Amino acid sequence: MTYELKAIGVIHSCFKEKFGIPRQPGLVPEAAATLELLPPYNCPEIVRGIEQFSHIWLLFVFHGSPQNRWQPLVRPPRLGGNQRIGLFASRTTFRPNPIGMSAVKLERVESGVDRLLLHLKGVDLLDGTPVVDIKPYIPYADSIPNAEGGFAQNAPPCKHTVTFTDEAATRCHELSHQYPHLRIMIEQLLQSDPRPAYKEEDKGRVYGMHLWDFDLRWRVIGNQVEVLELVMVSSQ
Amino acid sequence: MTYELKAIGVIHSCFKEKFGIPRQPGLVPEAAATLELLPPYNCPEIVRGIEQFSHIWLLFVFHGSPQNRWQPLVRPPRLGGNQRIGLFASRTTFRPNPIGMSAVKLERVESGVDRLLLHLKGVDLLDGTPVVDIKPYIPYADSIPNAEGGFAQNAPPCKHTVTFTDEAATRCHELSHQYPHLRIMIEQLLQSDPRPAYKEEDKGRVYGMHLWDFDLRWRVIGNQVEVLELVMVSSQ
Repeated sequence: MTYELKAIGVIHSCFKEKFGIPRQPGLVPEAAATLELLPPYNCPEIVRGIEQFSHIWLLFVFHGSPQNRWQPLVRPPRLGGNQRIGLFASRTTFRPNPIGMSAVKLERVESGVDRLLLHLKGVDLLDGTPVVDIKPYIPYADSIPNAEGGFAQNAPPCKHTVTFTDEAATRCHELSHQYPHLRIMIEQLLQSDPRPAYKEEDKGRVYGMHLWDFDLRWRVIGNQVEVLELVMVSSQ
Repeated sequence: MTYELKAIGVIHSCFKEKFGIPRQPGLVPEAAATLELLPPYNCPEIVRGIEQFSHIWLLFVFHGSPQNRWQPLVRPPRLGGNQRIGLFASRTTFRPNPIGMSAVKLERVESGVDRLLLHLKGVDLLDGTPVVDIKPYIPYADSIPNAEGGFAQNAPPCKHTVTFTDEAATRCHELSHQYPHLRIMIEQLLQSDPRPAYKEEDKGRVYGMHLWDFDLRWRVIGNQVEVLELVMVSSQ
């Protein structure tokens, strides 16, 4: 038995590639995105009253992961990448049905002629992600603070301090007109160290990730992340 | 752009019809169900380690609701059934993509030859529901206790006391060998009054719902629910 899903919207996000995306929503509170509702779902009535909710669930398709490549066992990064657990005991993107769900902060609704946007924060979503459903976050049913979360009970530790070179600090300041809270967002992003666990010995290697229209470059020495530069790249 | 989902499992639940199903998971803690994993998803490896988690998310198809019947505005029961809000500001089952999500309690995993069952509690799921994904409940990402939940901030009030006729009490006791905690489950189910809001003036009318292989019949007078009888019905 199969069921067909259609995209009701698409995500416009700062995250242009998978590397570096926060591993769960909420870990980088300043990570912003916009959900653009597609016709015929772009009429303001369809979200009437949604501003009452501080958070919403997005159900979406893991479009950046190859399909039909799931394995019964996976190695979650939280377990150091070498312990295997069942696919359904993990939030891996390689799933029989590649559907993700994220609780994100709803900042505001913007509507215009044939245009309906939800402004979001705390996202862990790749740019271009197709969204298949929006649901209000209902605290009494969705929030289970005393749930036992096994190996994922607590957020990953923010084990790094983040510093900026003078050049990176200046560039960040210049770009902050276009991207508010950019420096704070970069700090939130890098303090939990997005490198794969097995790379943690690569002292001094320069890493990069594509954010909006620039490359963010940094290196890690000990428990210190140094942001080296923000380099404009041609838009895609 | 469309995406195809396949069922990875099917729900065996006490709820044989839509009427009376709790409106969210967790409202009836004793409501039990089993998720049977379908081949090729029925190998024990696929859920290895899932017992670490007290709760899991199920993503499923609202198979009991007619498809493609969504409207931009809906009237949620929590608002008395006469105030309209946007479809995406509600958890209505009439959605462009009829996908539901429920956080349920994982009691235990049962595996045998070609057989993998997850025993669940606190469900709000219709018997026969096709499940398309299982994810562990991750407290740090999924639980947002201080989220603002608008009209659905708190659980619906348990405004009714539940009593049993002698006949119903005896029958309940007899059936409790087969269905443990049956009486408590019925009390949890009826104390929030599953009748539609606009029916609340139907004093004394007998209501019924199909649970497992019997019909549960009750009436409401004032803020008192009286369980009248449990009548065996032929199995489907």
